[in-house]
Amino acid sequence: MKIARVLFRGAEHYGIIEGAQIRLLEGPPFEQIAPTRKRVSMADVRLLPPTRPVNFYGVGFNYPSHLAQASATSGQDIPTMPRPWHKGVGSMIGPDEAIVIPPEARAVHYEGELVVVISKLSRRVTPEQARHNILGYTCGNDVSEKGSWESEGTMWRAKGTDTFGPVGPWIETEMDPHNQVLTVRLNGKEEHRANTSEMIHKVHELVSYMSQFTTLFPGDLILTGAAGTTKAMRPGDVVEVEITDIGVLRNPVRAET
Amino acid sequence: MKIARVLFRGAEHYGIIEGAQIRLLEGPPFEQIAPTRKRVSMADVRLLPPTRPVNFYGVGFNYPSHLAQASATSGQDIPTMPRPWHKGVGSMIGPDEAIVIPPEARAVHYEGELVVVISKLSRRVTPEQARHNILGYTCGNDVSEKGSWESEGTMWRAKGTDTFGPVGPWIETEMDPHNQVLTVRLNGKEEHRANTSEMIHKVHELVSYMSQFTTLFPGDLILTGAAGTTKAMRPGDVVEVEITDIGVLRNPVRAET
Repeated sequence: MKIARVLFRGAEHYGIIEGAQIRLLEGPPFEQIAPTRKRVSMADVRLLPPTRPVNFYGVGFNYPSHLAQASATSGQDIPTMPRPWHKGVGSMIGPDEAIVIPPEARAVHYEGELVVVISKLSRRVTPEQARHNILGYTCGNDVSEKGSWESEGTMWRAKGTDTFGPVGPWIETEMDPHNQVLTVRLNGKEEHRANTSEMIHKVHELVSYMSQFTTLFPGDLILTGAAGTTKAMRPGDVVEVEITDIGVLRNPVRAET
Repeated sequence: MKIARVLFRGAEHYGIIEGAQIRLLEGPPFEQIAPTRKRVSMADVRLLPPTRPVNFYGVGFNYPSHLAQASATSGQDIPTMPRPWHKGVGSMIGPDEAIVIPPEARAVHYEGELVVVISKLSRRVTPEQARHNILGYTCGNDVSEKGSWESEGTMWRAKGTDTFGPVGPWIETEMDPHNQVLTVRLNGKEEHRANTSEMIHKVHELVSYMSQFTTLFPGDLILTGAAGTTKAMRPGDVVEVEITDIGVLRNPVRAET
């Protein structure tokens, strides 16, 4: 099932996508998924980031094909444990919203990633319990300044600048997170293709590990890492992140004026 | 004026402290401060962290007296620009709540700091505008694992572990943030004393700088950096952070069971 958060007549709703319609839910889909009888046309809603999380996490170094680039850029050794970090919640944008490049930024790269959506308060859960605390998955673009900001360790702005966190278009609740083709396209041209089976730390292991120290909250989002090499985006570009069973997250890129 | 967020009869309220009483506000104090006629005894409320922020920021390397220790621990060069970073919002606790040390942690230090409380949406504000976007100040303890976690760069758990973010006891709206004595006591013994006049980046400069890249939201909290050297806390300890015009933030320390 595909669950979206949408703006309809000025109010936020969650709903289940049914073809060209969306069936609204009574509330957030974390405790229970309670459909109403109200269906509205997808043409009449605007897709929002699929949750409003307490925490928006990223995880570094999770695909072998990305390690070489990451290591060369950051000068860091490759860790054997997952490396979670906080991406600013304020950086989140939804599908079709513009990634806005500030004049101070250099080399702003896309990073197409699978995103885990947490459904239940999670603290000290085992990997097996963690499977039941995941609502589903969405697409994410961990937009990252690969120039001076990242090399200086200023992750706060390298990855947390306003609009650097596109997520969406919706949450797929029934899919195998470790057998998905993850494709990134720039202006319609395929730039990279990976399979989520390549992940070093699997999604339920990540959730379990992170929950050993920090409580994960319903709606929290975890970007699970980029694969391969990435490339800079320029104003005027359109970037797409596609994951087989989810769909396409598409965002235009423009310069800040 | 001192503004607290409190739990009274199971519901959250903001209020103005008037001696042994607190006068409840109609809502959050960010847009306007609207007192009701209702006063309740401080003995009947529990103090909560003074806001529920979208972002809980820290700023590294902001006191000359802390630079030597920080540099030695992290191996990083001392930057000339402020170094903001995200502290997990889930780490927040209020006055008198316990700092809980997980069994995996080694060398968990206090870091007593002045905390800025944002009142208005702030994006690309000048230092002069930033002065008007600060509601006030509170005390914070940027509890930090100084062992392997911090040296490995796993800030997420070194500083974001549950209970590692005590803040409070309330917000002081009328004070000079750059002429305050900042004292840290462990079990009643003064461990460190500094003056906030030693800050390298002043509070309105920090807010302006951060707002160049990320929107700051009403209620956002910014820890402005530790002074001097810090020391490990142990289960059974009581740690206090005192700032002249604000008051004392006191938290017991215990081991996770």
